[in-house]
Amino acid sequence: MVNETQHSCSASSSSKSDAGSSSGSESSKDSSRCSTPVLDADRHERLREKMRRRQEAGDKWFSLEFFPPRTANAAVNLISRFDRMGAGGPLFIDVTWHPAGDPGSDKETSSMIIANTAVNYCGLETILHMTCCNQTRDDITGHLQKAKRLGLKNIMALRGDPAGEEWEEEVDGFNHAVDLVKHIRNEFDDYFDICVAGYPKGHPEAESYEADLKHLKEKVFAGADFIITQLFFRSETFLKFMKDCQAIGITCPIIPGIFPIQGYHSLRQLVKLSKLEVPQEIKDVIEPIKDNDAAIRNYGVELAVSMCRELLDSGMVHGLHFYTLNREVATTEVLKRLGIWKEDPRRPLPWAVSAHPKRRVEDVRPIFWASRPKSYIYRTQEWDDFPNGRWGNSSSPAFGELKDYYLFYLKSKSPREELLKMWGEELTGEESVFEVFTCYITGEPNKNGHKVTCMPWNDDPLATETNLLKEQLEKVNRRGILTINSQPNINGKPSTDPIVGWGPSGGYVFQKAYLEFFTSSEIVTALLKVLKKYELRVNYHIVNVKGQNITNAPDLQPNAVTWGIFPGREIIQPTVVDPVSFLSWKDEAFALWIEQWAKLYEEESPSRMIIQYIHDNYYLVNLVDNDFPLENCLWQVVDDTFELLN
Amino acid sequence: MVNETQHSCSASSSSKSDAGSSSGSESSKDSSRCSTPVLDADRHERLREKMRRRQEAGDKWFSLEFFPPRTANAAVNLISRFDRMGAGGPLFIDVTWHPAGDPGSDKETSSMIIANTAVNYCGLETILHMTCCNQTRDDITGHLQKAKRLGLKNIMALRGDPAGEEWEEEVDGFNHAVDLVKHIRNEFDDYFDICVAGYPKGHPEAESYEADLKHLKEKVFAGADFIITQLFFRSETFLKFMKDCQAIGITCPIIPGIFPIQGYHSLRQLVKLSKLEVPQEIKDVIEPIKDNDAAIRNYGVELAVSMCRELLDSGMVHGLHFYTLNREVATTEVLKRLGIWKEDPRRPLPWAVSAHPKRRVEDVRPIFWASRPKSYIYRTQEWDDFPNGRWGNSSSPAFGELKDYYLFYLKSKSPREELLKMWGEELTGEESVFEVFTCYITGEPNKNGHKVTCMPWNDDPLATETNLLKEQLEKVNRRGILTINSQPNINGKPSTDPIVGWGPSGGYVFQKAYLEFFTSSEIVTALLKVLKKYELRVNYHIVNVKGQNITNAPDLQPNAVTWGIFPGREIIQPTVVDPVSFLSWKDEAFALWIEQWAKLYEEESPSRMIIQYIHDNYYLVNLVDNDFPLENCLWQVVDDTFELLN
Repeated sequence: MVNETQHSCSASSSSKSDAGSSSGSESSKDSSRCSTPVLDADRHERLREKMRRRQEAGDKWFSLEFFPPRTANAAVNLISRFDRMGAGGPLFIDVTWHPAGDPGSDKETSSMIIANTAVNYCGLETILHMTCCNQTRDDITGHLQKAKRLGLKNIMALRGDPAGEEWEEEVDGFNHAVDLVKHIRNEFDDYFDICVAGYPKGHPEAESYEADLKHLKEKVFAGADFIITQLFFRSETFLKFMKDCQAIGITCPIIPGIFPIQGYHSLRQLVKLSKLEVPQEIKDVIEPIKDNDAAIRNYGVELAVSMCRELLDSGMVHGLHFYTLNREVATTEVLKRLGIWKEDPRRPLPWAVSAHPKRRVEDVRPIFWASRPKSYIYRTQEWDDFPNGRWGNSSSPAFGELKDYYLFYLKSKSPREELLKMWGEELTGEESVFEVFTCYITGEPNKNGHKVTCMPWNDDPLATETNLLKEQLEKVNRRGILTINSQPNINGKPSTDPIVGWGPSGGYVFQKAYLEFFTSSEIVTALLKVLKKYELRVNYHIVNVKGQNITNAPDLQPNAVTWGIFPGREIIQPTVVDPVSFLSWKDEAFALWIEQWAKLYEEESPSRMIIQYIHDNYYLVNLVDNDFPLENCLWQVVDDTFELLN
Repeated sequence: MVNETQHSCSASSSSKSDAGSSSGSESSKDSSRCSTPVLDADRHERLREKMRRRQEAGDKWFSLEFFPPRTANAAVNLISRFDRMGAGGPLFIDVTWHPAGDPGSDKETSSMIIANTAVNYCGLETILHMTCCNQTRDDITGHLQKAKRLGLKNIMALRGDPAGEEWEEEVDGFNHAVDLVKHIRNEFDDYFDICVAGYPKGHPEAESYEADLKHLKEKVFAGADFIITQLFFRSETFLKFMKDCQAIGITCPIIPGIFPIQGYHSLRQLVKLSKLEVPQEIKDVIEPIKDNDAAIRNYGVELAVSMCRELLDSGMVHGLHFYTLNREVATTEVLKRLGIWKEDPRRPLPWAVSAHPKRRVEDVRPIFWASRPKSYIYRTQEWDDFPNGRWGNSSSPAFGELKDYYLFYLKSKSPREELLKMWGEELTGEESVFEVFTCYITGEPNKNGHKVTCMPWNDDPLATETNLLKEQLEKVNRRGILTINSQPNINGKPSTDPIVGWGPSGGYVFQKAYLEFFTSSEIVTALLKVLKKYELRVNYHIVNVKGQNITNAPDLQPNAVTWGIFPGREIIQPTVVDPVSFLSWKDEAFALWIEQWAKLYEEESPSRMIIQYIHDNYYLVNLVDNDFPLENCLWQVVDDTFELLN
């Protein structure tokens, strides 16, 4: 396997503990072990290693191709799609490169930024396409440097479509994908995993099928790690191609590109672009139903499923690459029917990890951003080191300001009109706000018949885990304890528990009960009296927008509220209540009242003033019950508080 | 309080979380919080802070004075005494300085080395005495630099006895203790806590009691932090002295020096040296019983107890300083009767912490050295950083070689003859070795009627915790599974549990079951077959003296086997099974067979060859049962192994 020995893995693979020849005290010097427990090998491996490991384990996998959106709104939707389709467990996604769309820019619709968002904010292993023709060496190097800086680790090296008919090869220019492969290896050594395109029917411009295979071999020998193919319509086409590749010495993974037919027009367009011919038997089915989208899609799904089954059954195919056309339904359907869509895959940590290499060792975060992980990632993007092992070990660098509430990947998925329906066209007092919180918790429609499916602090419906606390949450929200975050206590449930489990199997997970809410100063006064009785058991932080802060936390110590014990590992404690970070979170949590809610209303309108009043006068409170083996006492604390008020 | 404001605390006191004026994201920049949870404030405070905290809390305390031993054997005994008397919870000990005994040298009997051992190996807060007369400035600076380098943090600054009758004050020389105090503050700023001596009856050489008080005030104003007094025989003497001190503006702590009379001759000698007069009522009692040591000691204890009670009851005294004369019985008796000897004080961590400032943050160690903590401290003394939070976070520096098995503080307390009686004058085969291990576990006498109270790997009788496993341990040792370390599994017992508890109250402690033993290759072969059944549950490391190593540990990851969850804290995991360190421990564990046991016998003797055979052919095995909430399966593993062998 020339392309594998050429650039052998330089990543930080932990050395195997074969100490047969090591002499004890010396081996500790030479140890190259990881600085953090490898909870999830995926986080530490590069894409080609993941591919190899899956193949060795006999696991079938899939990947998803997307193109960059045209508008900012479409970008928001695409990112939501990444999150939803990411839940099915793709090995990677890839983002295409459109020279006309300024693909390397900082625009929210550029290929570069979409790939960046997928990696950093959605935690997806991502391949960025890159084409080289009609570009200068400096342009290309600049794009690659930027990709590296953003944490992108994989490039699909393509020639791209020449601009205009008159295109001629330039001497010493980038005329073919192989030139780009060589350039990447020359300039970036082994940093990137490189993918190249294969054409099961031969590239339309190639002199012959055989000549095209030779080009492919050149690309692989120049340093490509694997091949993704152009779409095709029959499994035999791919299997023959694969055998032909192997016959001439191409031994790297070759991943078939699958195109589920989703509509008459998209098929025609694609065929035109790719210069492929649609087999007659497919044309025969499609032509009569060309105006029935649903029928065509059903047929496309059938066709893709049966072709994929043939490929997988051949024993030669381990992964399938889907051309999604940025749509969800058909691809998801195919994957589910093939049984390789892995709904609710095991969580390596209680929160969604980012795929930036800098964050590889990150394994502890403050609980406050539980529902706003993208904001947390954004506000910590400048950090050089990420806390691992223990939050208190970090040098606690500053959180970045969250000034721009309109960063497209932080934007609410719901438009203004919908938010007004959920949160009230007109508020009549603090009670109308209590009502909104209560409806969000219960899932019941508000008095105008609209369900409240998101809140400024939660862009998604209630988490399954929070559902466990629903009844109590409803009760307290109704009375003005406006909850925005909570978790139940857990005393050693298996790490495979479908609701609260995370991490590798065979472990045990634990939680301290947590409750975070906004509430009035009147309630805070009573609460503080009640908390005196719970002084040794409950830790609290109570702060208003001005930063007045009341706490019984010892010094500035963080309190671990989620942790797990696993076979052969050190303790993992991924979530803490950190008094220092809480003050950064406080700014964000209070600002969301104004930025996301108050600003829905006219200035000086009563509705806006009500939200402004809450923002100015309420306190943000968090409570931790340290006695995790006992029954959660936080509800008792709240009950006692209401009783005191009566 | 001039002497306190003069040099305000520069230690790393965690800033209080009064964030009233801090603006969130900025406060995280300025945070000076500790890098590790303050499990035990004692570890982070300097002596004067500890004193103040105890006084504020109304806790009474005591301290103990020792003089350096004359011989290496006496040094070994003194160190054992430090360990035993340290268990009673002294706030500090102090070691006197004898210019004639080369006190600053590296000799095992020097004041410097004894104080070093007390701090680093016994974990005791220690004051090193230092005298200044007849010494050059460079000598003194050298001693102080060495003390600092060794981790000593407190100096008792004394003039010392002038050499010869003809002594005269030198201009610019060190003529009085105050010169030494000034020198320390000049050269070492606030690094050391400084103690000075007070004379309740006035210094014998002072012009007057009043003049002596003035000298004392000078010493305090020059930078001393507290005063320890010369001994006295009546509480009124001290209380008057204290009031007189306060009257002239001395406000720092003044600690009465207590001398429990332990014998006629020691009293006479001390009186001669200190030029004190023994009150007639004491002489009247002692003279008639001067040849009855026990009677005098009983009287001395009575006297000390009643005087100490008067002092404590006065409300002016918070701590008592005992002149032990390097003896245990009388002082311990007085302390117990006063109720300030704190038998089995709460352990801040499962292992005894070292008091070196470098080790302040250390909170995780490999389990292997559980019974040889001094060896662990010795072998890691060159480390610049100590693991905290997580073992894997450390850069895993090399363990120092343990070449000198006769470092006095690592030496067995038992002489060769006693070891031979315990471990066998003559061994007849491996079974005689099994027998020794079994007797150590059961506490039953061996066949020659001698109890086995120590082993090369354990210089003390079985730990209380290990007693929980006694029955099973006996069974397996009898059959050649020669256990040297073990702990039961614990699933969340209160941190105040008298046997397995540690850390602050209100927490919960956990353990994974652990078993470490030497055994034959025959048993190892069977064991490995059995372990296949327990692959996912039990982690093992099996290594022989040549370093052949068999393990199922993932990569080189450490496995946390002791951890604790405390209110308002991050998780503490003080003990790990670390595969890398195990290979360093292996060298030590195998060497102990030869150095401590084989070498008791003549070269080429059958007994020596038996131990040598075991050393050369046995394996060192450690097993961890990861399923801490279930019943410990390690005994089942061993039973299965024996069954397979039958």
